[in-house]
Amino acid sequence: MPDVDVRGFWGERIDAVADRTAMILYDRCVAAGMFDQIDPARPVPPVKMPWHMRADGTPDTVNVQMFWDSDVAKVIETAAYALYRKPNADLEAKMDAIIEMFAGLQQPDGYMNSWFVRMQPGHRWTNLRDCHELYCAGHLMEAAVAYFHATGKRKLLDVMCRYADHIDETFGPKPGQKPGYCGHEEIELALIRLGRATGEQRYLDLARYFIEQRGQQPHYFDVEAAARGVDPAQWRHKTYTYNQSHLPVREQGKVVGHAVRAMYLYSGMADVATEFGDDSLTDALNRLWEDLTSKQMYVTGGIGPAASNEGFTDYYDLPNESAYAETCAAVALMMWASRMLGRGPDRRYADIMEQALYNGALSGLSIDGSRFFYDNPLESRGCHHRWSWHRCPCCPPNIARTVTAIGSYMYGISADGIAVHLYGASTARLSAGATAVTLRQETDYPADGRVDVTIGLDRPARFTLSLRMPGWCGQAAVTLNGEAVPMVENGDGYLHLAREWKDGDTIALDLPMPVRALHAHPAVKADLGRVAIARGPLIYCAEEVDNAADLNALIVPEDLSAAKTVPVPDLGGAVAIDLPVRREQWPQREGRLYDDHPPEYATMTARLIPYHLWDNREPGEMLVWIRGGR
Amino acid sequence: MPDVDVRGFWGERIDAVADRTAMILYDRCVAAGMFDQIDPARPVPPVKMPWHMRADGTPDTVNVQMFWDSDVAKVIETAAYALYRKPNADLEAKMDAIIEMFAGLQQPDGYMNSWFVRMQPGHRWTNLRDCHELYCAGHLMEAAVAYFHATGKRKLLDVMCRYADHIDETFGPKPGQKPGYCGHEEIELALIRLGRATGEQRYLDLARYFIEQRGQQPHYFDVEAAARGVDPAQWRHKTYTYNQSHLPVREQGKVVGHAVRAMYLYSGMADVATEFGDDSLTDALNRLWEDLTSKQMYVTGGIGPAASNEGFTDYYDLPNESAYAETCAAVALMMWASRMLGRGPDRRYADIMEQALYNGALSGLSIDGSRFFYDNPLESRGCHHRWSWHRCPCCPPNIARTVTAIGSYMYGISADGIAVHLYGASTARLSAGATAVTLRQETDYPADGRVDVTIGLDRPARFTLSLRMPGWCGQAAVTLNGEAVPMVENGDGYLHLAREWKDGDTIALDLPMPVRALHAHPAVKADLGRVAIARGPLIYCAEEVDNAADLNALIVPEDLSAAKTVPVPDLGGAVAIDLPVRREQWPQREGRLYDDHPPEYATMTARLIPYHLWDNREPGEMLVWIRGGR
Repeated sequence: MPDVDVRGFWGERIDAVADRTAMILYDRCVAAGMFDQIDPARPVPPVKMPWHMRADGTPDTVNVQMFWDSDVAKVIETAAYALYRKPNADLEAKMDAIIEMFAGLQQPDGYMNSWFVRMQPGHRWTNLRDCHELYCAGHLMEAAVAYFHATGKRKLLDVMCRYADHIDETFGPKPGQKPGYCGHEEIELALIRLGRATGEQRYLDLARYFIEQRGQQPHYFDVEAAARGVDPAQWRHKTYTYNQSHLPVREQGKVVGHAVRAMYLYSGMADVATEFGDDSLTDALNRLWEDLTSKQMYVTGGIGPAASNEGFTDYYDLPNESAYAETCAAVALMMWASRMLGRGPDRRYADIMEQALYNGALSGLSIDGSRFFYDNPLESRGCHHRWSWHRCPCCPPNIARTVTAIGSYMYGISADGIAVHLYGASTARLSAGATAVTLRQETDYPADGRVDVTIGLDRPARFTLSLRMPGWCGQAAVTLNGEAVPMVENGDGYLHLAREWKDGDTIALDLPMPVRALHAHPAVKADLGRVAIARGPLIYCAEEVDNAADLNALIVPEDLSAAKTVPVPDLGGAVAIDLPVRREQWPQREGRLYDDHPPEYATMTARLIPYHLWDNREPGEMLVWIRGGR
Repeated sequence: MPDVDVRGFWGERIDAVADRTAMILYDRCVAAGMFDQIDPARPVPPVKMPWHMRADGTPDTVNVQMFWDSDVAKVIETAAYALYRKPNADLEAKMDAIIEMFAGLQQPDGYMNSWFVRMQPGHRWTNLRDCHELYCAGHLMEAAVAYFHATGKRKLLDVMCRYADHIDETFGPKPGQKPGYCGHEEIELALIRLGRATGEQRYLDLARYFIEQRGQQPHYFDVEAAARGVDPAQWRHKTYTYNQSHLPVREQGKVVGHAVRAMYLYSGMADVATEFGDDSLTDALNRLWEDLTSKQMYVTGGIGPAASNEGFTDYYDLPNESAYAETCAAVALMMWASRMLGRGPDRRYADIMEQALYNGALSGLSIDGSRFFYDNPLESRGCHHRWSWHRCPCCPPNIARTVTAIGSYMYGISADGIAVHLYGASTARLSAGATAVTLRQETDYPADGRVDVTIGLDRPARFTLSLRMPGWCGQAAVTLNGEAVPMVENGDGYLHLAREWKDGDTIALDLPMPVRALHAHPAVKADLGRVAIARGPLIYCAEEVDNAADLNALIVPEDLSAAKTVPVPDLGGAVAIDLPVRREQWPQREGRLYDDHPPEYATMTARLIPYHLWDNREPGEMLVWIRGGR
């Protein structure tokens, strides 16, 4: 993990998570009873536990969940980044106690999963398809690496390495090993991370094995179900597209199934492609990338329109009001995009990473870090609101760990250079090969497109600094030590400055941020005749609190030159857009359902705010795709 | 049934049914195996019978259906009107043979239902909620009356009067009688019709009893289920709104549940209100009418947007592509509207009757009378087509009997007058009180708004002739014997000419038929920013065969003055509308999902055809609500 001191926009967000969200996540895991399941010192709980009161006053129950280890793991990972940001003895003690629980769970052979150790002993590795067993292991590996880096404490890392060794012995092509893989991908990218952190090649090889094995025939989930005495066809998800095991990964070209699973798989594939220099995987990844981003992605970077499979449906099926677009899925898209940058800078990936980050992912966390969205629709009639907890609590720690780890998404480093993928006020201590470089960004980004970069070096050094020229900004202007730099396009959307750098060199970027109207592909029926307003990396929306109800009566003009940008104090100074629009009115209707009279139009100034900030004030309607007029 | 000789538009439709549809309906009843269930001379069939071949060549089966009596009844009713139109010895012999089957089914006590006599004996009257038992009786009563009027043959009428007597003994408030009513309304309006045809007051009283009893507590369907040893809550439709038994009828104000059931109930209520002069029922009916027509009706007069309950959902929930809008439901709305005219002319009802008739109902029948729509969406991407038969074959005979009986919807008669509700080339022999009047309409309606009415009388007579001035025509012009008649509005939308009429008096109506753009209430999200083009009573649509694919790229201008009307030979000379429109184009997209470039616009002439005629030519896309531009 790169050493980045983040200030400004993201600094405030990280502080909110460190000061508030991390402990909220812990408290809510306690309230959900997760540690009753995990802690081997406690009695084994019943499968159904009391939970909260229903609106009618009767008690509701919650099932102990076989994937709770993963939720706790993401809380540990979040806490790790929070502790890296600022010390918190109470939080650290709580995490240490949880780590003791997991250590106590570990079996003599290294196995460690609270569900199969305590709730359903004797059934380990019998249902990889449904039971999230390797998925839980993967999240705990990620937590272990993060906690070690943040605190220097090895305990969880050692536990997870022993578990990884056990998994490596259990799975593989040799006699007596299981040729299986997890129904919910995650272990693949986690093993890469663990392998990179520990230098253990076996972990990288095992990640590759899981990737290669997926979708091979005879199908492991069929064989496994038969071994349980169960008909594989009697499965509620019905098709292996649900978990992307319908085909070997190199033969996949359409993004299908559960959105988070798909993104985690592709993230793992991209990591393996990077580690092993595997171009055949990269070919499949590029097909899938094109498929997702040209036919199946919301303008917010949200993905997976359907609640039924928490995932993908048909091409261009992107309904706004019923959009599922799970926070975790946007986070996972960001993860995939980040990993597609593993083999070098390319704006195709970095632009989408930024789009998902600032819109469909960040929307999952309230400004103060205390409330969450699970699904992120692009339109609301006023009944969709942030909640304080969820029965399936995957999203809150996922967005929290992502926000606090934002520094790890900002830069790409290689033997001969540094790439700046994301802009934001920060100071990073990086290495271009053997050269230690301090890279300081001063900027109000994303409120403003001016970015001043200062290079810190102990001695002059030759390396390439690659600066992303975002696709949304049209023509950027860049100066180096006050001199204009010509924009040379090499097709990857980055400006590559290869030279001998000196301490104190400065680069100034001016990324124009006009107010833009985005038009969806005409096959997206939900967006026909509508526009999404954008500025810089931010997608905007209208909220009832600013514009009164009935947002579908607003009509945005084709000419946006009258738009004004305004800071909004009660949204942390975020930049709103004030835009003259027409409002459709029907004074002569008298309740008639169908009528000859055309509408009349009033003019008004609509206020649009960044999408990720919606539902932080008075609840009400929200709309991203606003009707456009000519 | 009034004696009306229909020519012109409806004459051609009636001939298609008489010449083709009536025998098609019979043949398909044979093919479906209905007479294996009904004919007591045949062996009792299995519940699952072979049906047709699937696309993959394997045989499919169909369940014998407990409501097949009703489908056959509607075929008899259609045949009756066809025989009234023109003799057909073969068709009549086939109907006589079916009537013999029903007569043979009748039990010594008068009971007669093929399912409970042959398939499930011993279970009669045990599940009124689900088993369509009284519903089947109702349709057979309607068939009996029609067949008697058309042929003079009493056999089915006598059978059904005996059955009605048995039902009258079985149901009622007296000890030993069942206080029940049918889950699928129909018996109510049928008993009124049978009572009017036979003069038997008991049938009218029984219709009123069923109406009054509906929704009373203790709920009959609860009691009945308990008597069967079944939990009433274990019912797939879950709520009694499904069959409008959630409340006593006078307390109902929201149109809910299964659309056909609702319309048949309200039809029966309107008949009872008329027969018994019951204003308290009329109050409820007016509330329900307002509710339906101001918040829950498609512009085609189609109703019931949802397939799940074949019925109503929320206010203004009128999706176009997924519209269920069953043909039977539009027919039933027409029936209700017609019965709302029972207490005198009122354009509120007659306009909607015409709207449902010419659009959402007539769309159910192909021009040649051989193919049918069950559901009538207002938009198709090209995969919705007319079929030759259906497992639930309620719609084909329903639209067929309605078309052939169109003469019975055209006029209202009372002791002192005649009201013309629908215009169409025809000659009617009517009675205004004791005065026999021949009323001849010469017109190309609905292609043209000129209607010439000639009065035929043996001797001069005083009565009121009431002529509907359709709500869609703005300002009509009327002359009487060549002299302009001043338009006097009395609030009911009819021009009332009260005078002494002489043989040969002529009235000429000029009903302007400009091309109009209809705008939906802004709460109808599916129609936002869109217009439906109408002319006279007809709603128009665009088809792919005339306009190429991608109909959602068409944008209709606000000013329709350039629209031209053109007769289309391959649609029987129907009037098309040729309209200059813009077509949205995206030349710079290059497959991008979201893009800064606004669309470009080409101009073209779109051809629109009457909605009811769609899918009579090459299959393809169809669209009613076309995007509107300013």
